[in-house]
Amino acid sequence: MKIAIINPNSTKGMTDKCKFVAEKFKFVGTEIWASNPTNSPASIEGHYDELVSLMGLMEEIKKAEAWGAQGFVVACFDDPGLGAARELVKGPVIGICEAAMHAASMVATSFSVVTTLPRSVPIIEELSHRYGMAHFCRKVRAADIPVLALEDPKSGAKEKVKNEILRAVAEDNCEAVILGCAGMADLTLELSEQCKIPVIDGVLTAVKMVEALVGAGINTSKINSYAPPRQK
Amino acid sequence: MKIAIINPNSTKGMTDKCKFVAEKFKFVGTEIWASNPTNSPASIEGHYDELVSLMGLMEEIKKAEAWGAQGFVVACFDDPGLGAARELVKGPVIGICEAAMHAASMVATSFSVVTTLPRSVPIIEELSHRYGMAHFCRKVRAADIPVLALEDPKSGAKEKVKNEILRAVAEDNCEAVILGCAGMADLTLELSEQCKIPVIDGVLTAVKMVEALVGAGINTSKINSYAPPRQK
Amino acid sequence: MKIAIINPNSTKGMTDKCKFVAEKFKFVGTEIWASNPTNSPASIEGHYDELVSLMGLMEEIKKAEAWGAQGFVVACFDDPGLGAARELVKGPVIGICEAAMHAASMVATSFSVVTTLPRSVPIIEELSHRYGMAHFCRKVRAADIPVLALEDPKSGAKEKVKNEILRAVAEDNCEAVILGCAGMADLTLELSEQCKIPVIDGVLTAVKMVEALVGAGINTSKINSYAPPRQK
Amino acid sequence: MKIAIINPNSTKGMTDKCKFVAEKFKFVGTEIWASNPTNSPASIEGHYDELVSLMGLMEEIKKAEAWGAQGFVVACFDDPGLGAARELVKGPVIGICEAAMHAASMVATSFSVVTTLPRSVPIIEELSHRYGMAHFCRKVRAADIPVLALEDPKSGAKEKVKNEILRAVAEDNCEAVILGCAGMADLTLELSEQCKIPVIDGVLTAVKMVEALVGAGINTSKINSYAPPRQK
Amino acid sequence: MKIAIINPNSTKGMTDKCKFVAEKFKFVGTEIWASNPTNSPASIEGHYDELVSLMGLMEEIKKAEAWGAQGFVVACFDDPGLGAARELVKGPVIGICEAAMHAASMVATSFSVVTTLPRSVPIIEELSHRYGMAHFCRKVRAADIPVLALEDPKSGAKEKVKNEILRAVAEDNCEAVILGCAGMADLTLELSEQCKIPVIDGVLTAVKMVEALVGAGINTSKINSYAPPRQK
Amino acid sequence: MKIAIINPNSTKGMTDKCKFVAEKFKFVGTEIWASNPTNSPASIEGHYDELVSLMGLMEEIKKAEAWGAQGFVVACFDDPGLGAARELVKGPVIGICEAAMHAASMVATSFSVVTTLPRSVPIIEELSHRYGMAHFCRKVRAADIPVLALEDPKSGAKEKVKNEILRAVAEDNCEAVILGCAGMADLTLELSEQCKIPVIDGVLTAVKMVEALVGAGINTSKINSYAPPRQK
Repeated sequence: MKIAIINPNSTKGMTDKCKFVAEKFKFVGTEIWASNPTNSPASIEGHYDELVSLMGLMEEIKKAEAWGAQGFVVACFDDPGLGAARELVKGPVIGICEAAMHAASMVATSFSVVTTLPRSVPIIEELSHRYGMAHFCRKVRAADIPVLALEDPKSGAKEKVKNEILRAVAEDNCEAVILGCAGMADLTLELSEQCKIPVIDGVLTAVKMVEALVGAGINTSKINSYAPPRQK
Repeated sequence: MKIAIINPNSTKGMTDKCKFVAEKFKFVGTEIWASNPTNSPASIEGHYDELVSLMGLMEEIKKAEAWGAQGFVVACFDDPGLGAARELVKGPVIGICEAAMHAASMVATSFSVVTTLPRSVPIIEELSHRYGMAHFCRKVRAADIPVLALEDPKSGAKEKVKNEILRAVAEDNCEAVILGCAGMADLTLELSEQCKIPVIDGVLTAVKMVEALVGAGINTSKINSYAPPRQK
Repeated sequence: MKIAIINPNSTKGMTDKCKFVAEKFKFVGTEIWASNPTNSPASIEGHYDELVSLMGLMEEIKKAEAWGAQGFVVACFDDPGLGAARELVKGPVIGICEAAMHAASMVATSFSVVTTLPRSVPIIEELSHRYGMAHFCRKVRAADIPVLALEDPKSGAKEKVKNEILRAVAEDNCEAVILGCAGMADLTLELSEQCKIPVIDGVLTAVKMVEALVGAGINTSKINSYAPPRQK
Repeated sequence: MKIAIINPNSTKGMTDKCKFVAEKFKFVGTEIWASNPTNSPASIEGHYDELVSLMGLMEEIKKAEAWGAQGFVVACFDDPGLGAARELVKGPVIGICEAAMHAASMVATSFSVVTTLPRSVPIIEELSHRYGMAHFCRKVRAADIPVLALEDPKSGAKEKVKNEILRAVAEDNCEAVILGCAGMADLTLELSEQCKIPVIDGVLTAVKMVEALVGAGINTSKINSYAPPRQK
Repeated sequence: MKIAIINPNSTKGMTDKCKFVAEKFKFVGTEIWASNPTNSPASIEGHYDELVSLMGLMEEIKKAEAWGAQGFVVACFDDPGLGAARELVKGPVIGICEAAMHAASMVATSFSVVTTLPRSVPIIEELSHRYGMAHFCRKVRAADIPVLALEDPKSGAKEKVKNEILRAVAEDNCEAVILGCAGMADLTLELSEQCKIPVIDGVLTAVKMVEALVGAGINTSKINSYAPPRQK
Repeated sequence: MKIAIINPNSTKGMTDKCKFVAEKFKFVGTEIWASNPTNSPASIEGHYDELVSLMGLMEEIKKAEAWGAQGFVVACFDDPGLGAARELVKGPVIGICEAAMHAASMVATSFSVVTTLPRSVPIIEELSHRYGMAHFCRKVRAADIPVLALEDPKSGAKEKVKNEILRAVAEDNCEAVILGCAGMADLTLELSEQCKIPVIDGVLTAVKMVEALVGAGINTSKINSYAPPRQK
């Protein structure tokens, strides 16, 4: 099975992190493609960054399908371009926020999300409504760090994420915590142990869910709004 | 007051139609800018078309602000790029679906929407949820015409829209009908009279609502998620 | 264009404040009517006060239409009598809570409301549900002042409102604040500057929205529940 | 126990019908007051009629409390004035739409409502949202009869109500039907047998629910928004 | 009228408490059955305990119907087995959480719930959604006591419940408090007086509501999902 | 990886069908356990049947964990006993309705469900609300066949299911159809091809989703309501 992970921003370090996690946990026989556009923002911090990444994201998705990808992960927690990608390709396309929220709702009665910047909070709240997950979501919290601080070991970012998770545990009455940024994918296990609460990362979860859908023979429905783009 | 209307597709005829309607109904002292990208799809029929239009849409919004625009209308019923545009500019930015639904909810207890293609129906339904208008919205209907048929008098498109409105009147128990495409902006009055139900067009409504917000001194909040894009 | 503002309580000072704000921001060519019943409570502080004001409110609306009013603002934040008024007159009728919430949802991802008395909080929360604005509304707060304290410069009311807005900024993660009483209409600009957050007043917003709807030719739908009252 | 039923319209025949039903089903020891204002509309068919009935309704409620009433039923399916009445009196105040919907949700997984005129449909739909009953409510239907036709045996009203119930049974997949007008209170048993579905009348249900609350010592909460009206 | 109360756990002391409350407040002519299974857990603290109690609960319900019961109360705040019980018997079956929430929504604009253990909080929150009561429910709180502590006067349980109610009054902006465990049924009056807020107990409320439904002739609908179990 | 499928009813033919589908689609290295209680109903057709199956279901889950199962599928579309099972075992527990709805929401903008008997429709509708999937669910439909008809090739059940799917395609504007009974697991591919719409089966989907969660190291949260049952 061939699975593609597209990181919509242009920071290769984050792409590598996603690939590392996927390679480590993939099923026997799964091949992983991981790429990112080179003409997109270095990080996606708000609606406009997301918008600027979209054309590059689509190009990578097309390349991955040409490579043979049967399923696709969009590895940014704002879940950019899902609808458009679903029109372009045959296989399932899953966002990492989407995957993490669905998974969390099946192993806990509620969750909180810890993301990077406060400006991303309303975006993630809106996604929780769109996916039907709002009543499982206790709170979306921001550790108040720029996305790229996660790539810099000296930034103190990991400590700030940990502290925000501990605040979620203390204040939110949640039963799981979702990491709200692809750049946190390597912290899952460590944070879960330190904070004594299941910590769920969207990148890994989305890769496994795509494997599951492809393995079940479930593709994107093409009978109406996800049909290929119309010729003019 | 300077108001900009950006049609995100590249069909100048639709832009002209929007401008005509706005000029006819604007308040004394309002100046209208109307433009469209030249590198976007000829019509927006689904998620991917919408995505392809976004960078061009942003460019036009920047140009319009350089011209002095104090408020902005995005003239496509899928309301593309609202969040990103709100980050870019100071004045209010309103989508035509958003404007029409809000207005309808203040003059009728419920409405139906008549759009062009069936593939746009789920997109508009999702907008109705996002805006909190789902419980006012009886049904989103498609006249089953391509967007550009509205630009061709011989296509029979107007008749099909009219028939779909009449079905809404007969079957939906709605008290108003919203026209679900910028290309229908010139049909409002005629359809309203023929179908014996208030017919609301988003382009005109959005222009007037933007005039209202600008006139009231209400600008986009810049204190969190609509703040200008972050420097990397 | 002729626009009427009806303050449902009998405190002429509040009516004058509404008129002052409307006159200052109206479009060229708009004429403003502002009146209040003389047989209604001096302030509307709860369901019963609201009820007692209703017949007088209707009488004023009829007078205003006889004067030629094409659109109507009900200037009490509980939005009393909207449905009945919509049956009585042809033009659009907008409540100030309704106008403020709709406007806020188009320029911010969320808002809080600061009203006068705690007993009004559940009434405003219910309106937020009715209008579909509940998921935009972070919190409805009370400054714990009687309505008429706003008419008395020595009451300290303005300071209390300001302090409650500052609490909203600090605690609610909101991007705008709505003033939850017609008697606060003159404080908008000052509070917005002092509190570093967009502050939205319903009176001004409703006047501009009514101008917008009338300017767009959008009247109340008369085909079902807002049809004129039935003869017995 | 003393229970008051106030019919807000001025048609004594409907008041008598309510009293008859209540007397027949009351618990041992319950005394029934039934009255109506004389200065209200003969029937309540829409928002404005409802508004005109309110002051008279409040007067009757005050009289009933002076008589000693410990609980109150507002016998019009639009549930007018509940909030204000709850401020005025100590005992519980229940509307007949409210009572019927709550009861139906405890004995069936869903219900439809059959009311008189189409213009009342949106009013009842809004109540279903306010009470949290919207997801139990399959459809609100109108038999398309004026309220007072129910007082005239020759009007054919009963047959039309029956036919609409049969349509609900055939089309709505509902498990109970609520009669959406106080004037239908005498038809419950007959319609239930003829239509082979539990038919629930709000008048009787509200009387029994008020008996239940009073019997349980549950009164209206007076600690915030239902506290007595404030002195000015 | 014959009413049965089934306590699904095997602690007879709790059953006796329910019976005592019911006997004290029942209407003239009502006979009370109260029983519990002997093969169920001593207390119901979570999903599994609830599950283990179900077959015994059904047996008691069958016995009670054989005795002649015309209405049934399930006296555990998780409302176990309501759907199944409704299939088995003719009369109405009401849960104590269900009854308390419905009643509270008719005498207050909002309520909080105080239950025993934190693990029951998500269960009660889910019930509030199922019954449509979520927007009336400010918060579900746990006093952090095992259920059986309520049976032991030396446990300090009553004091902890009282303190949690006082926190609800101080922090939740609620207008009533619901006691979230059948074992608290004897504390209602005392806590209501001490905490200066209406305190509502589900056991008593459910008994009175069942009396009301039976008195109104309203039985469980048998036309679809509550029909008797199918023969195989 | 060891995955258990428990069919809560006692019909071994259905268990075998589930095992066959799982074996066919499992990932390399997955071992499948499939069992059913012998003391449960032959089919689960309503709330009471579901209740009667629960203790046996729990016993099988315990046996499967003793065998080494790391993840669990409850193979009945009413998703019985999920909460209790989550308390009992460490690995994730997924219901087949839950799995199918989540999956469908990621590959289609909406779905309809085709189940067996009308009495199961409200049960599935309630699950759609609980899982947050209600706004994706166009309609829950019943083919009006007993569950066990699916085990009898001469019953015509397959044809009836097919016809109901075709009605969903024609009337519901849905983009996928979910098979609402474990007994339909073998019909997926055939129905998908015949009906020209993606058909999703919960058994297969749940098996793959459990593999995904286990593969990602995601277990049931044990920090609050899914903690092991309390000792008394």
